[in-house]
Amino acid sequence: MTETDVPEDHPRYASLVTRHRIEAGVDAGITSRQGLIAQGRGEAFDYLLGERTLPSADAAERAAAARLLLADHPVISVNGNVAALVPEETVALAEAVDADLEVNLFNRTEERMKAIADHLREHGAESVKGLTGDGEIPGLDHARGIVDADGIGAADVVVVPLEDGDRAEALAAAGKTEIVIDLNPGSRSPRAAAIPIIDNVIRAVPSVTAHARDLANASPAELRSIVDSFDPEAALSAAEAAIREGEFGTDE
Amino acid sequence: MTETDVPEDHPRYASLVTRHRIEAGVDAGITSRQGLIAQGRGEAFDYLLGERTLPSADAAERAAAARLLLADHPVISVNGNVAALVPEETVALAEAVDADLEVNLFNRTEERMKAIADHLREHGAESVKGLTGDGEIPGLDHARGIVDADGIGAADVVVVPLEDGDRAEALAAAGKTEIVIDLNPGSRSPRAAAIPIIDNVIRAVPSVTAHARDLANASPAELRSIVDSFDPEAALSAAEAAIREGEFGTDE
Repeated sequence: MTETDVPEDHPRYASLVTRHRIEAGVDAGITSRQGLIAQGRGEAFDYLLGERTLPSADAAERAAAARLLLADHPVISVNGNVAALVPEETVALAEAVDADLEVNLFNRTEERMKAIADHLREHGAESVKGLTGDGEIPGLDHARGIVDADGIGAADVVVVPLEDGDRAEALAAAGKTEIVIDLNPGSRSPRAAAIPIIDNVIRAVPSVTAHARDLANASPAELRSIVDSFDPEAALSAAEAAIREGEFGTDE
Repeated sequence: MTETDVPEDHPRYASLVTRHRIEAGVDAGITSRQGLIAQGRGEAFDYLLGERTLPSADAAERAAAARLLLADHPVISVNGNVAALVPEETVALAEAVDADLEVNLFNRTEERMKAIADHLREHGAESVKGLTGDGEIPGLDHARGIVDADGIGAADVVVVPLEDGDRAEALAAAGKTEIVIDLNPGSRSPRAAAIPIIDNVIRAVPSVTAHARDLANASPAELRSIVDSFDPEAALSAAEAAIREGEFGTDE
């Protein structure tokens, strides 16, 4: 089934498109086996959240946009699932907030790094960092900590969608302001973030971009006010409550 | 990492062994991409359940054992994930309740059917059904409905771990008494079952076997009483409540 074979009014259109993109990512050497398992975990949490962007997640997405617009050197970290699921959307976000894109894999192989960088370029990225690997985040096994010195290494704000808990904590400990996108509010990654976005990347990335465009002419004081009024603990609690109170009893 | 490299006292021993077995299943041509995604969904629900067998699930496992011992022709349906995760345990259950094993795949290919049958034989199965495919469950697309006429086609009781919702409903409509093992209490498969077991197959299959051994000398009246006192709606509600009330905030 190609992506366009799925009718847009199908009740599970987004879910089917997502799954198609992940499978195509495997064919392209972008998505790993661990990435497929992680996709399944995300599907379960998204199902419990009602496959929608919570008001608290939308507020987080607006705060993320404001924080990115205030940043000196924002970088968006891209792994295999992000590249497979939202390549164009991630390139559009990087453009909207003038951020670098850096490929960063939990299981780093040169082959997958290159496949992902190529995939991002095919979807409009002008430059992609990550292949130099001349920097390191302290407190991680060497292979896990490799970054580009002039990319994540020099960033003040980092967007890490679907990040491993150890790495999210090490990035925070290294003084980076982190924006984490994750569907599990109990996971260590969003708990390490200054701005945790509990939402599907498929919905979250375009939403941050839309907020960034909306805020393009806002003053630094206005942006700072949006960031300061965001409460990460409240956002995590709201997502947890939504999961606890959500509807059971439907599936595909 | 081989399975034996994981120390048994590791806090996530069961989870790591599970993941290792699933990955080995991919290497052996047993587990599909969809199987990896399904594994991830299961991990998320198991995490929310606290990675434990609820008392309500243990009661379901005992009722399942009693119902299997009462059956005239019980069959255990085996798909790629079941074969990868619990091959020996599934063979042991079939022996304990004198059931047939039948390979039954959502995405049927002769290659995977054969790989799974071989894998079960390597783990002690004397005979494995499913490759003949001369029967059909009504109400499904032809490829989805294929079964062995003298296997699931002739069964009165069918154990379907990790089954697709459409197929679970079609089996129930065909008059089979179904025992479904699934981690999502909201999924259609356990809701179609006479006995829904909301538990990880890794824990559930050995538990049903242990109950069957414990009940080996019970009278038909005793077995019938255990089955009749089991309430499937209450079991589903208990699992749903456990997910809603479970602990968030830990992950690997």
